[in-house]
Amino acid sequence: MQDVKVGILGKGTVGGAFRKLLNERAEMVEEVSGRRPKVSGVLSSRKGDFDRILARSDIIVELIGGLEPAREYVTRSLTEGRHVITANKQLIAQHGDELVAAARRGGAQLRFEAAVAGAIPVIRVVQESLGAIPIEKVFGIVNGTTNYILTEMARGGLSYDEALAQAQALGYAEADPTEDVGGADAAAKMAILARLAFGSPVRLRDVPFEGIERIKPDDLAYAKELGLSLKLLGVAERVGDGEISVRVFPCFLYPGHPLAPIEGPFNAVMVEAPAITEITMSGPGAGGIETASAVLGDLVSVIGGGSPLFEENSRLRIAKDVEMAFYLHLEVDDRPGVLARIAEILGDNSVSVRSVVQRGAGDEAQLIMVMHPVSERRFNAALKRIAKLRFLRSPPRAIRVIEEEFT
Amino acid sequence: MQDVKVGILGKGTVGGAFRKLLNERAEMVEEVSGRRPKVSGVLSSRKGDFDRILARSDIIVELIGGLEPAREYVTRSLTEGRHVITANKQLIAQHGDELVAAARRGGAQLRFEAAVAGAIPVIRVVQESLGAIPIEKVFGIVNGTTNYILTEMARGGLSYDEALAQAQALGYAEADPTEDVGGADAAAKMAILARLAFGSPVRLRDVPFEGIERIKPDDLAYAKELGLSLKLLGVAERVGDGEISVRVFPCFLYPGHPLAPIEGPFNAVMVEAPAITEITMSGPGAGGIETASAVLGDLVSVIGGGSPLFEENSRLRIAKDVEMAFYLHLEVDDRPGVLARIAEILGDNSVSVRSVVQRGAGDEAQLIMVMHPVSERRFNAALKRIAKLRFLRSPPRAIRVIEEEFT
Repeated sequence: MQDVKVGILGKGTVGGAFRKLLNERAEMVEEVSGRRPKVSGVLSSRKGDFDRILARSDIIVELIGGLEPAREYVTRSLTEGRHVITANKQLIAQHGDELVAAARRGGAQLRFEAAVAGAIPVIRVVQESLGAIPIEKVFGIVNGTTNYILTEMARGGLSYDEALAQAQALGYAEADPTEDVGGADAAAKMAILARLAFGSPVRLRDVPFEGIERIKPDDLAYAKELGLSLKLLGVAERVGDGEISVRVFPCFLYPGHPLAPIEGPFNAVMVEAPAITEITMSGPGAGGIETASAVLGDLVSVIGGGSPLFEENSRLRIAKDVEMAFYLHLEVDDRPGVLARIAEILGDNSVSVRSVVQRGAGDEAQLIMVMHPVSERRFNAALKRIAKLRFLRSPPRAIRVIEEEFT
Repeated sequence: MQDVKVGILGKGTVGGAFRKLLNERAEMVEEVSGRRPKVSGVLSSRKGDFDRILARSDIIVELIGGLEPAREYVTRSLTEGRHVITANKQLIAQHGDELVAAARRGGAQLRFEAAVAGAIPVIRVVQESLGAIPIEKVFGIVNGTTNYILTEMARGGLSYDEALAQAQALGYAEADPTEDVGGADAAAKMAILARLAFGSPVRLRDVPFEGIERIKPDDLAYAKELGLSLKLLGVAERVGDGEISVRVFPCFLYPGHPLAPIEGPFNAVMVEAPAITEITMSGPGAGGIETASAVLGDLVSVIGGGSPLFEENSRLRIAKDVEMAFYLHLEVDDRPGVLARIAEILGDNSVSVRSVVQRGAGDEAQLIMVMHPVSERRFNAALKRIAKLRFLRSPPRAIRVIEEEFT
């Protein structure tokens, strides 16, 4: 059979790793898919012409990153009937609708396994293995940078800044880490996963996210004492009839939770559905070679001819509020009436306290409180009022808690 | 588009669960795959005619189990160009060559996700996501019955017989549990996984297996003391140039190993390859609904049109020997010279001892030894000689140990 002509856009870390891997594995791709891939052109920022590469290719592999010109190239490729494989999570999260429409127009496949969770084939599992199963919840650790930082803070007692510097030195964090540590990267991945899991459009603006920049060693010390782990979680779940919630937030996990042992730059995703109970998948996050290998898996599937089974027929509402348990850390003046005042505000908002511990005394006094699960909206209303109390020595810190114990 | 006609062979637990699930999800299958599945006939042992069902079906779902007549029906279906989905691990493990040849002749797809690891889509991941990646090792807990029994023995101090009775009462073990507890079930699954991972034919007779029938509460007490877990593992790995080893055996795992926390009737599989480091997937073992959902995933893929990417071009040799560390439990007479004699036999066979502990005294004396990794052949030669020693009060018990600590 004829060779399959593969045009590669991008010559960075991932582009380079993919070219090398494709070169090494071309024969194996031919064995398993029936046709041999051949690079028909490579586009870098300095060299190559997109139109010429497009004209000569059956499949376009987009590894430029960023929104433009990636969006334009991918849309044109699909419209003109070229299958596209991309590792670009922002592109899929922000322009998914447009790209899917272009793929339909052109009768082409669009695959993006590499956009989420590195080498873990979570897209394929959600889209294909569980394609006809009603998924209740997809959640996990989808950003390796933040998991590395939190692991080091917990293990070595490092401050956030120290752990970040270490992650940067080891190549686990970029020079500008904002997108990772602020949660935006995880939010884009969760928007993609939610879309596939629920078959309903989810925009990036539907995904509220918090990062880990404000986590203090204090919080991790508290976690350690109680055997809890602190993780940056992405959660996409059905929360009511026709409603879903997709969020990213740091969160304490009880011991025994399948995500608790996931440490360092690893990712892990759990899928819950009545028919399968739960599946957990874990592996290294997105380095150059892991991403390249996910792209190669997509290439094999595209050549093999399966359709990517992409259908959005539901229009689920994004929930405005959900229930969560919270940990609340307050640095307060050590005098009578303080706790009573805080408890009053919480009570006014129907927030029920599960435990309170006072630590230190005088200028060091801290209150560590854990709430029962409560509407986030009500808790935030209480938090806003607490933040204004004059006897607080620093802004309150709230972190969510997942209480279920898995055994 | 026209309906897809699905003939179902088998009306047992899985057959029933699949019919129910297909009925509930027919619309969703149509949404994601483009065509609506319609049951064209159901064959039970008492009712239905295979030839009539075959003539009326595009896809045959084989859920009879056992070798005959399943083998005949599947071979004929494939030869006559019908796609086949099966959950029958013994059929695939024992007649894989014949079935793959029939699928080629008929230009049909053969899919069997449900044959291995319940709801965990390990077949799809190995065949598709990692289809062009050279896999080094696939291993894990692929039998839920034995994992449940070992978990209960460890947790509750039950004897093997008590834990088995409990597993039977809860439906985790069959009335005749031989195939599960003896390791044959896991061996069939590992033969299938090895075949796909290495692209080389692996026969069931190439897979030596041991079960858990001879595990004693003593062994689990020892494990508990050292923080080890005891699991029945299936391991398929490259061990040398052009050589692979596929085996099933009970094994101690150090704490921190990703498979150590897998408890109860759960399965978990790890895949190791240079390009992905390692991926771990875990989920419930094969109950009726989990199996039915895996079959449904295959149905979506078959209708969607992807080829199952099945190619065997290598002919790897099965290794005759591998290296493992061992734990050795001996009940011995408590008198001078006993340890010296045992140490001498081990030394003669170049087996190096890492630690020895004596427990109890007099009629209760036990030696618990752990060896450094050693050729299994040499260890077994030593074990054979030790078993003949007159001062042994019961046959020696050896259990493998996986030493790597994961952090």
